Amino acid sequence: MKIKVINPNTSWPMTEKIGLSARLVAAPGTEIIAVSPAMGPASIESHYDEALSVPGILQEISKGEAEGVDGYVIACFGDPGLYAAREAARGPVIGIAEAAMHAASLIGSSFSVVTTLQRTCGMSWHLAERYGMRHLCRNVRACELPVLALEENSAEILNRIADECRRAIHEDGIDSIVLGCAGMADWCQELRQMLGINVIDGVSVAVKLLESLHQLGLTTCKRGDWAYPLPKPYSGLLQPFAWPQGK
Amino acid sequence: MKIKVINPNTSWPMTEKIGLSARLVAAPGTEIIAVSPAMGPASIESHYDEALSVPGILQEISKGEAEGVDGYVIACFGDPGLYAAREAARGPVIGIAEAAMHAASLIGSSFSVVTTLQRTCGMSWHLAERYGMRHLCRNVRACELPVLALEENSAEILNRIADECRRAIHEDGIDSIVLGCAGMADWCQELRQMLGINVIDGVSVAVKLLESLHQLGLTTCKRGDWAYPLPKPYSGLLQPFAWPQGK
Amino acid sequence: MKIKVINPNTSWPMTEKIGLSARLVAAPGTEIIAVSPAMGPASIESHYDEALSVPGILQEISKGEAEGVDGYVIACFGDPGLYAAREAARGPVIGIAEAAMHAASLIGSSFSVVTTLQRTCGMSWHLAERYGMRHLCRNVRACELPVLALEENSAEILNRIADECRRAIHEDGIDSIVLGCAGMADWCQELRQMLGINVIDGVSVAVKLLESLHQLGLTTCKRGDWAYPLPKPYSGLLQPFAWPQGK
Amino acid sequence: MKIKVINPNTSWPMTEKIGLSARLVAAPGTEIIAVSPAMGPASIESHYDEALSVPGILQEISKGEAEGVDGYVIACFGDPGLYAAREAARGPVIGIAEAAMHAASLIGSSFSVVTTLQRTCGMSWHLAERYGMRHLCRNVRACELPVLALEENSAEILNRIADECRRAIHEDGIDSIVLGCAGMADWCQELRQMLGINVIDGVSVAVKLLESLHQLGLTTCKRGDWAYPLPKPYSGLLQPFAWPQGK
Amino acid sequence: MKIKVINPNTSWPMTEKIGLSARLVAAPGTEIIAVSPAMGPASIESHYDEALSVPGILQEISKGEAEGVDGYVIACFGDPGLYAAREAARGPVIGIAEAAMHAASLIGSSFSVVTTLQRTCGMSWHLAERYGMRHLCRNVRACELPVLALEENSAEILNRIADECRRAIHEDGIDSIVLGCAGMADWCQELRQMLGINVIDGVSVAVKLLESLHQLGLTTCKRGDWAYPLPKPYSGLLQPFAWPQGK
Amino acid sequence: MKIKVINPNTSWPMTEKIGLSARLVAAPGTEIIAVSPAMGPASIESHYDEALSVPGILQEISKGEAEGVDGYVIACFGDPGLYAAREAARGPVIGIAEAAMHAASLIGSSFSVVTTLQRTCGMSWHLAERYGMRHLCRNVRACELPVLALEENSAEILNRIADECRRAIHEDGIDSIVLGCAGMADWCQELRQMLGINVIDGVSVAVKLLESLHQLGLTTCKRGDWAYPLPKPYSGLLQPFAWPQGK
Repeated sequence: MKIKVINPNTSWPMTEKIGLSARLVAAPGTEIIAVSPAMGPASIESHYDEALSVPGILQEISKGEAEGVDGYVIACFGDPGLYAAREAARGPVIGIAEAAMHAASLIGSSFSVVTTLQRTCGMSWHLAERYGMRHLCRNVRACELPVLALEENSAEILNRIADECRRAIHEDGIDSIVLGCAGMADWCQELRQMLGINVIDGVSVAVKLLESLHQLGLTTCKRGDWAYPLPKPYSGLLQPFAWPQGK
Repeated sequence: MKIKVINPNTSWPMTEKIGLSARLVAAPGTEIIAVSPAMGPASIESHYDEALSVPGILQEISKGEAEGVDGYVIACFGDPGLYAAREAARGPVIGIAEAAMHAASLIGSSFSVVTTLQRTCGMSWHLAERYGMRHLCRNVRACELPVLALEENSAEILNRIADECRRAIHEDGIDSIVLGCAGMADWCQELRQMLGINVIDGVSVAVKLLESLHQLGLTTCKRGDWAYPLPKPYSGLLQPFAWPQGK
Repeated sequence: MKIKVINPNTSWPMTEKIGLSARLVAAPGTEIIAVSPAMGPASIESHYDEALSVPGILQEISKGEAEGVDGYVIACFGDPGLYAAREAARGPVIGIAEAAMHAASLIGSSFSVVTTLQRTCGMSWHLAERYGMRHLCRNVRACELPVLALEENSAEILNRIADECRRAIHEDGIDSIVLGCAGMADWCQELRQMLGINVIDGVSVAVKLLESLHQLGLTTCKRGDWAYPLPKPYSGLLQPFAWPQGK
Repeated sequence: MKIKVINPNTSWPMTEKIGLSARLVAAPGTEIIAVSPAMGPASIESHYDEALSVPGILQEISKGEAEGVDGYVIACFGDPGLYAAREAARGPVIGIAEAAMHAASLIGSSFSVVTTLQRTCGMSWHLAERYGMRHLCRNVRACELPVLALEENSAEILNRIADECRRAIHEDGIDSIVLGCAGMADWCQELRQMLGINVIDGVSVAVKLLESLHQLGLTTCKRGDWAYPLPKPYSGLLQPFAWPQGK
Repeated sequence: MKIKVINPNTSWPMTEKIGLSARLVAAPGTEIIAVSPAMGPASIESHYDEALSVPGILQEISKGEAEGVDGYVIACFGDPGLYAAREAARGPVIGIAEAAMHAASLIGSSFSVVTTLQRTCGMSWHLAERYGMRHLCRNVRACELPVLALEENSAEILNRIADECRRAIHEDGIDSIVLGCAGMADWCQELRQMLGINVIDGVSVAVKLLESLHQLGLTTCKRGDWAYPLPKPYSGLLQPFAWPQGK
Repeated sequence: MKIKVINPNTSWPMTEKIGLSARLVAAPGTEIIAVSPAMGPASIESHYDEALSVPGILQEISKGEAEGVDGYVIACFGDPGLYAAREAARGPVIGIAEAAMHAASLIGSSFSVVTTLQRTCGMSWHLAERYGMRHLCRNVRACELPVLALEENSAEILNRIADECRRAIHEDGIDSIVLGCAGMADWCQELRQMLGINVIDGVSVAVKLLESLHQLGLTTCKRGDWAYPLPKPYSGLLQPFAWPQGK
């Protein structure tokens, strides 16, 4: 199957790291296409950035539909544009916050999210609520690292994340750590070894969930809330997004 | 004070109707600027349309900041881009679903939403949950009218809405009707008279709430979740949206 | 329009302070009538006091109906008798806890209440739950000040309140402070300047909400839970309260 | 032990029926004192009536304290003044809605309330929420009988209640019926036989719960939310209620 | 009436202590039969132990039915097998966590549970949720004592429990302590005197609730979720459990 | 990897059907071991049956640990013994209700469960609540078929299930059907074709989730609520279950 992993920010070094994490767990026969959109913010650190990452995501979905993609990962912990993407795609679409929280709920009785900036913690709480995982989520913790700092593979950055994870373990009484940024994906294994606890990266979980749904013959229901968009004109800069795209 | 009412779809006849409803209740001294964005969908009838209405909304906010606007109404019942807009604006920003539900909670013990298409009902339920109004919202009902059908001022359309309101009154046991589309704003008075019950249009409520906050000296908190976006480059089609816009 | 602000305790100095706060924000053309009931507790610091403040409130509503009052504020943070008052009045009735929490929800993503005595904190939590604001309310904090201590305009009292607000800011991670007692209303501006954060006084918000509802032509629904009381005899001391009052 | 059963309305025939139901289940050695207050509404059918029944209840508590009463039942399904009464009494105070819902939760997985008037149903839903019984309460159903109609022991009235109970059984899928008015207490046995299902009357349950708490040495905690009221002056008609009463 | 108190672990010294606590509060005419099952774990300190205590409990129910038992107490704070036992018994069945939490809700506005091991705290939280008592439960605290350590009547053990209770009082702001293990039942009085706060032991409460239900003529509804099990063959070691047992 | 699928009832024909469904979706390299326990009920149709299916499940876990099993499916829609099994196993354990509901949440915005007997519907509601899926679950519907009737591959049985599914589609407004019994697993494909909607069988989903977790290196956390049971003696019939089993 063909899985497109969309890193909604336009930082290609991060996209490559994310692609690597995805490929590491992909089944034989799964092709991973990791992309950044052709438009949008360099990093996603606010509701503003998040909202403006969505057109680029939807363009990638549209291209993916033409390329025969079977499923999509939205690789930003705010799961931006998830429901819009579900409407636009034939195959299933999974966000990495969604994926990580589901996995955490299968293997532990509680988790804390460790993410980048304090100002984005509210989004994680909102998603935990939306996905029915609020009762498992004990805390959302910020390392106060800008997203793009994660591009550097420095020991200092890793230690700062590890320290926040340790605080989560000691203060929150949790079973698992959920990494709250796609840019942390490649440190997942290392953190597990350092901490001796389940550390969950949503990118790799999302890939396995898509493979699972594919094998099970399950895809987004097209009857209800997530039916294809209705055709209509779009204007101005966004004229090319008129549904159906590229028609 | 200067209030900008943003109709997130690009249908100007609807924008004019919305502007009229806003002006009808505005205090002397309040200037109402009713606009449609220069980009985006002709109507909002899906998560896809909603997501793609947000760049246009944010552009209008940005222009509004330069024009000295003191507060904004997002005049689409899905409250698209509300939190992103709050980050970008100096003054308060209010969505019409938010406004209508708050008003309903002050004057009745329950309400039903009457909206356009079945496929958008899930969004209204989600907003009721998000705003803490889930316990008051008894039902979300669709008239199965496309949004742009509301542009016509035909008696037939009005009757279809009135019929659904009557079903809400008889079957849902409610105190008030919340109109689930900005395009219904100008029928609000007529429906009240036909039905003999509170009928609430979010556009006019939002205007009064903005005037109230203005008079009270209250505006969106800039310390926490809704601080101004962090400056950063944007690329491609969306390059002009790089924060701070127009700099 | 005519707004009656009812301070449910019988302390007239506090009533005057409350009236002042109300007049400060009232629109031209709004007449503010600030009263204390002719019966009841000197201050409200328990469920017992609260329950026994309600007959006086209802008497004031009854007098207000005869005087042509268009809307009522119940100016005690427990919102005593709110639903009974809604039944008895033609125009809308708003409690100051309700008003303050609604305002807080429009401009921030979280708030803490700062109130007088620890023993009343449970009431505030209950109201946050009842109004659907539980998810925004991070803490209810007591300054351990008796209500009537607020009558003194001493710097010491102000500082004690400001100190508790500062603790809320540092420990609760909130966007706004909600003042948990009508007696704090006149310190609202001063606290905003001292703290550099939104400080919300329910008295002034309630006035603006009543003006807004009035302008919008919205009032308490008289069909459902808050229909006028059924006529019937009352006996003993409370005989004069038999509905309809004064008939 | 001495239990005072307070029927908050001033209808003595109903008080006698309620007293009878209480005595029927009281343990040997339990003295039941059934009273109506000396002031207040003839029946409780609105928030207005409910609020104005509270002074009379609190007066009865005060008299009860002087008489050596060990526990109190508030025999109206809205549980009026429950928390105020708990503050004023040495011994425990139990409301009949509270009692009935607790009992229902011990013997079945769901219940419906069958009460008098539609306009009071909202109160029952609110109490179910407040007591943590919302997940068990499937419906609140009104027979559209005025409260005082229950004084007549007519077969017609009984049949109307029984019919509504039957609808509850068939349509709500429930295990037990909770009688939503103290005035129905004496039909409890008859309804059980007619319907072949658990029918729960809160008056008798409350008596047994008080006896149980008494035997267990448990009473309302006087440290926290329900500590004795603070002493202070009261004015006007309510001057005699100044705490401590009668001092 | 005949009440069987089932201590689900096989430690008879603890069973005797539990029986003693039950007899201390039982009404004249109530016969208390305190038993440990003939099979199962020596103590219950995990989900594994809890699950495997259930067959023994159900065997005791079955024997009790033959012996004419009128009601059952499941005397382990996890309330193991409660719903299965309700299906199998003619009379009501009450768990001690359920009983203690209900009692706590009648006399205070919040409680903390003080239990044995940290790993069982999740179960208590789950039960608080299930019984609708989550809003009252402020904390679940472990003394880190193995269950069987409670068999010793040493002052050291008592002090460790008392210390944890004191921390609950000071840090959790609660009205009552709920003892989170049947093995603590006989220290209930002593702890009340040491701490000056309501301390609630579920064993004694459950006995009084059963007596109350008995007197009220109320028992588990046999129409719905807790109807008698359907007859069917069982195999292997558990063949004797085939319903109806002993037939 | 080695996956053991435990059908908790002792009906081997059903076990074979379940094994077949599991193998149909298993990845190459996954070995499916489908078993019924050596003890317990012929079918699970009550809390009583469910509780008594757990010892057999735990015995199979214990045997599986010796056999090198990497993950377990509990193939009964009540997910009996799930947390006890998680404590006892090295690898992850997944219940089919849990699996099916998670899958439904990834591809649709709502689902109804279609199950066998009305009396088990309460269990499904409880699990939806427990797993945080209550907001997606619109209904739990019974076909009033005994579990073992599903062993027959008759068209009549299939049609009865399909009819209930059709009612769910028309009356509940849902996106997906969740099959509420492992015995329905092999009709999943046929029902999808008949109904044109997502039909989800938890057995196959659970297999894919286990494979996913295995590939991701994630397993039940052994630090917290689901640590291995504490060693201790067991007595009577259940003596062989003393942890660690077989030691």
